[in-house]
Amino acid sequence: MDIAAESLAKHAEWRGKLAFDPKMDIATRHDLAVAYTPGVAEPCKVIAENPEAAYDYTLKANTVAVVSDGSAVLGLGNIGPEAAMPVMEGKAALFKAFGGVDAFPICLDTQDTDEIVETVIRIAPAFGGINLEDIAAPRCFEIEARLNDALDIPVFHDDQHGTAIVVLSGIINALRLVGKDKESVRVVVNGAGSAGIAIAKLLLSYGFANVTMCDIRGILSSSYEGMNPAQEAMLEVTNLEDKSGTLADAMEGADIVIGVSAPGVITPDMVASMADDAIVFAMANPTPEIFPDEARAAGARVVGTGRSDFPNQVNNVIAFPGIFKGALQARAERITEPMKLAAAEALAALVSDEELTEEFIMPDPFDSRVADAVADAVRACAAAEREGA
Amino acid sequence: MDIAAESLAKHAEWRGKLAFDPKMDIATRHDLAVAYTPGVAEPCKVIAENPEAAYDYTLKANTVAVVSDGSAVLGLGNIGPEAAMPVMEGKAALFKAFGGVDAFPICLDTQDTDEIVETVIRIAPAFGGINLEDIAAPRCFEIEARLNDALDIPVFHDDQHGTAIVVLSGIINALRLVGKDKESVRVVVNGAGSAGIAIAKLLLSYGFANVTMCDIRGILSSSYEGMNPAQEAMLEVTNLEDKSGTLADAMEGADIVIGVSAPGVITPDMVASMADDAIVFAMANPTPEIFPDEARAAGARVVGTGRSDFPNQVNNVIAFPGIFKGALQARAERITEPMKLAAAEALAALVSDEELTEEFIMPDPFDSRVADAVADAVRACAAAEREGA
Repeated sequence: MDIAAESLAKHAEWRGKLAFDPKMDIATRHDLAVAYTPGVAEPCKVIAENPEAAYDYTLKANTVAVVSDGSAVLGLGNIGPEAAMPVMEGKAALFKAFGGVDAFPICLDTQDTDEIVETVIRIAPAFGGINLEDIAAPRCFEIEARLNDALDIPVFHDDQHGTAIVVLSGIINALRLVGKDKESVRVVVNGAGSAGIAIAKLLLSYGFANVTMCDIRGILSSSYEGMNPAQEAMLEVTNLEDKSGTLADAMEGADIVIGVSAPGVITPDMVASMADDAIVFAMANPTPEIFPDEARAAGARVVGTGRSDFPNQVNNVIAFPGIFKGALQARAERITEPMKLAAAEALAALVSDEELTEEFIMPDPFDSRVADAVADAVRACAAAEREGA
Repeated sequence: MDIAAESLAKHAEWRGKLAFDPKMDIATRHDLAVAYTPGVAEPCKVIAENPEAAYDYTLKANTVAVVSDGSAVLGLGNIGPEAAMPVMEGKAALFKAFGGVDAFPICLDTQDTDEIVETVIRIAPAFGGINLEDIAAPRCFEIEARLNDALDIPVFHDDQHGTAIVVLSGIINALRLVGKDKESVRVVVNGAGSAGIAIAKLLLSYGFANVTMCDIRGILSSSYEGMNPAQEAMLEVTNLEDKSGTLADAMEGADIVIGVSAPGVITPDMVASMADDAIVFAMANPTPEIFPDEARAAGARVVGTGRSDFPNQVNNVIAFPGIFKGALQARAERITEPMKLAAAEALAALVSDEELTEEFIMPDPFDSRVADAVADAVRACAAAEREGA
């Protein structure tokens, strides 16, 4: 049976990938009186006096909402909220399996920015954090920004920031391997959607000095027409020479290319035109911008993709469970830029000098140290930020 | 340690009364590929073509939202959404413990009718049903009616209908015991809020002919001033002689009094003025309208309260888990009036002739037959309605 058929059969067996089980026995009148009325009035009264106590007495302590409008689900596109449920349930299951974080899928029957923002604000009291998922650009930017302003719990768009953190961790280790510096390398990011922009921003935050973005018609520059506001804002900090041209032009002499774009758009010739020890992340899924064997044959030294059947899979599951685990432990109100950078460094540091090879630049998702390493980094940042504030 | 202190300590230990656990192991790349990408795309595609398939492949199959705005929580009043969480989590835990139904607490950061309705509609795709809880009257009526119109999943305000079903089941058995008929008895319902109105309506649906409602200033009649629209509507079907007066006037010669009102408002004299074999349900909590020993001393034959430390506790937990279990199994779009009546009859029938006494008119909440008996009754109704439609 292939994976698709097996998955469908299993989903029919599960009828929901999560079970919501009471943590206590409810087998006697006494049990009922403690877990429900009349005893339950006591924590209610304590929280009514001090809403912060919700973290001490309710599932807000360790529960994240996985929120989607079903508008940009996997490679399937705008399939709507019901059809997005298997993905959001899966994401919630990964939160628990990898990070010990409880998560609940919320699939919204609206794709209007204002309505999504309003709705998430209204359901927020039960949750300690909001993970936005598979919401189309550019509205995902506005939704995340407005929710972070309105709420005092962290709001994190995993398709942007989770991806950026894992890419950065891989790039840190790829540079460690080839012996180049972040300050001197030339980076090309192909694909100026939400993931590409988040990756470019995080690289710049980390200290990369030379980043150029491309989209479907070539290099983002002052002469590129029809950019959205998020893309225009990136022009202030990328492509500082305001070069124009094609992806091939951008890649000539570059040290690193990161594709979050479309199948097959990077050719062997483009890779061959890059600097020595080129690093290629080709993350279009399931068909990458260029296959690893082709990229290596054309001279690339390190190649990553989004697929689990090649080495160096860029897999968000090594980031988001630990990010939220740490943020919830710290009761952080935001996932800040320093937390994202610290998470990427913590992931990179899990690969020892002995382990580090062209085919092993990121920790294995099933490495049991991963979530705690990320959570510890996030918690340390939160503590430092609290002291500094 | 008293119940309040024990409950607070346990809530601090639990930090959330529910855990959300994956139903599958996620320990290998293959597990990930089946539960998440790429396999998960398959059920997504099936549901995108046919949204009804969400019941076959997602947790919509067996999951209810427990929704509150925190405006009328237990006897605590308007304590807001965070403070309502322990109650809603408890309710969700009871759904699972008693009915095998998964439930998730949603506490809304709004008390505006339009906003509550909008929000619940937008989060509905993940859920197979909506249980409204502890929402103040009269907006609870409008919210329930508008949601039932807008959604194709059942919406049920447990404070109204769950209470009414359990009261009716108790009254059925109390009449069985005293040998009176529903068509000939005089019933007084004291308390014309959401529960009182729902009880009166369900009794009328079941065939009770003579029901009179009272509120804080006496009998609801054409001369009662300041009624809300829900109370006015009840005048069409209750107190057909349009009698006015006090609760004491209403209870004189009555066979049944049902209090969902306030501590101590029923006196022994009022009970003494009732017909022989009087039935008294005094459900104000924790202090009833009249205590059972006083009521019996004044001549009542059957007495029920809301408390677990007296016989005949009117406890919604014998109804709502089975109601939703049956509705979800049947994929019913509504909890209809015939389903509520069938549920009450099924509950009453669980008490055999041999078991039926003045102190045992309703099944024990921990009787393992309860939820299935109710679910079977609801499912049979749903099937009959589908055939009739």
